[in-house]
Amino acid sequence: MQFSSSLVENAVNEFAKLPGIGKKTALRLVLHLLKQNEATVGNFGDAIIKMRNEIKFCQRCHNIADADICSICANSMRKQELICVVENIRDVITIESTQQYNGTYHVLGGIISPLDGVGPEQLNIESLVNRINKEQVQEIIFALSPNIQGDTTIYYIQKKLQPLSVKITTIARGISFGGELEYADEMTLARSIANRLPVENYVSK
Amino acid sequence: MQFSSSLVENAVNEFAKLPGIGKKTALRLVLHLLKQNEATVGNFGDAIIKMRNEIKFCQRCHNIADADICSICANSMRKQELICVVENIRDVITIESTQQYNGTYHVLGGIISPLDGVGPEQLNIESLVNRINKEQVQEIIFALSPNIQGDTTIYYIQKKLQPLSVKITTIARGISFGGELEYADEMTLARSIANRLPVENYVSK
Repeated sequence: MQFSSSLVENAVNEFAKLPGIGKKTALRLVLHLLKQNEATVGNFGDAIIKMRNEIKFCQRCHNIADADICSICANSMRKQELICVVENIRDVITIESTQQYNGTYHVLGGIISPLDGVGPEQLNIESLVNRINKEQVQEIIFALSPNIQGDTTIYYIQKKLQPLSVKITTIARGISFGGELEYADEMTLARSIANRLPVENYVSK
Repeated sequence: MQFSSSLVENAVNEFAKLPGIGKKTALRLVLHLLKQNEATVGNFGDAIIKMRNEIKFCQRCHNIADADICSICANSMRKQELICVVENIRDVITIESTQQYNGTYHVLGGIISPLDGVGPEQLNIESLVNRINKEQVQEIIFALSPNIQGDTTIYYIQKKLQPLSVKITTIARGISFGGELEYADEMTLARSIANRLPVENYVSK
């Protein structure tokens, strides 16, 4: 693409570095911003730079935070004795969006995946064990992706936690709401039969 | 969507203001930027703010420019006596991408559209007439969208230019390369028959 302005060319190239944004979309976004006033564009740029420069990670649960402790850990209305272990920040946002969970989180920062060179020592597992040792934790809920790496991570952490008297659970796996039985994979269907529920538990309260 | 950081929330909201970017895509972009180092994110934000603050519009053709005159107008290798009249900056970039046009441009900044409240006085038509009066212009090529508004604009400008001895042309309209005759609309097909070309002109040289 040919531009008659290097300022525009730079901005397009910067946008095109973002995932899922090609040169044409980048140009569309840049031309949109050119039509906005300077203050609007200033706010856009500043919000992004400020976020990156000032973002903190919660010292307790490793979630994104504006202070040393994130707003979820600092909220006394939430059950501090309940910890949901997730892979990353996005999972926290996804679970929070359901508005059904009222405990705290622990962000591992990844899952054990030897093929990708991710071992237990790169994850926030030590701090989870410390947290359980120090705090009055009643239950750990694993909400990891249902695959081999997720299961390996659960197995590893569960071994580490065995000496401690803490209840360990994992989110239910089964047929998705609205999913067709016919298209479910065999492993999911088999597990979902093995872990069948009494009908009174099934109907949401 | 629930965020535990107002910094991230602000950045997501700013991204979501861009056309075609929803909250989920905005979050994906923000989480991507969070993984980059501060310098990279700084470059991204600065490029956009700098572009908006420092962009200029060519005093001659109203194209985007880094200086008072754009790089196309300043280029002595281009035919300065040839002016291609386009609706907006994007059209300049599109035509430049073909690498087939070697003249200059004149950006109208819109087309005449009474329904949208755009009249001739809001467009850069006066400066086009001045340009033709002052410079040795040989030919004006209209490259406007082939619709009623485009045709109205061409008609209006052509009337204004009638006293001046300048050749006025418009880009060819016809069946697109690779287009199917069967699916062409009647107006395009009728015009394309009326403006038929000798075969020797058709084969590209």
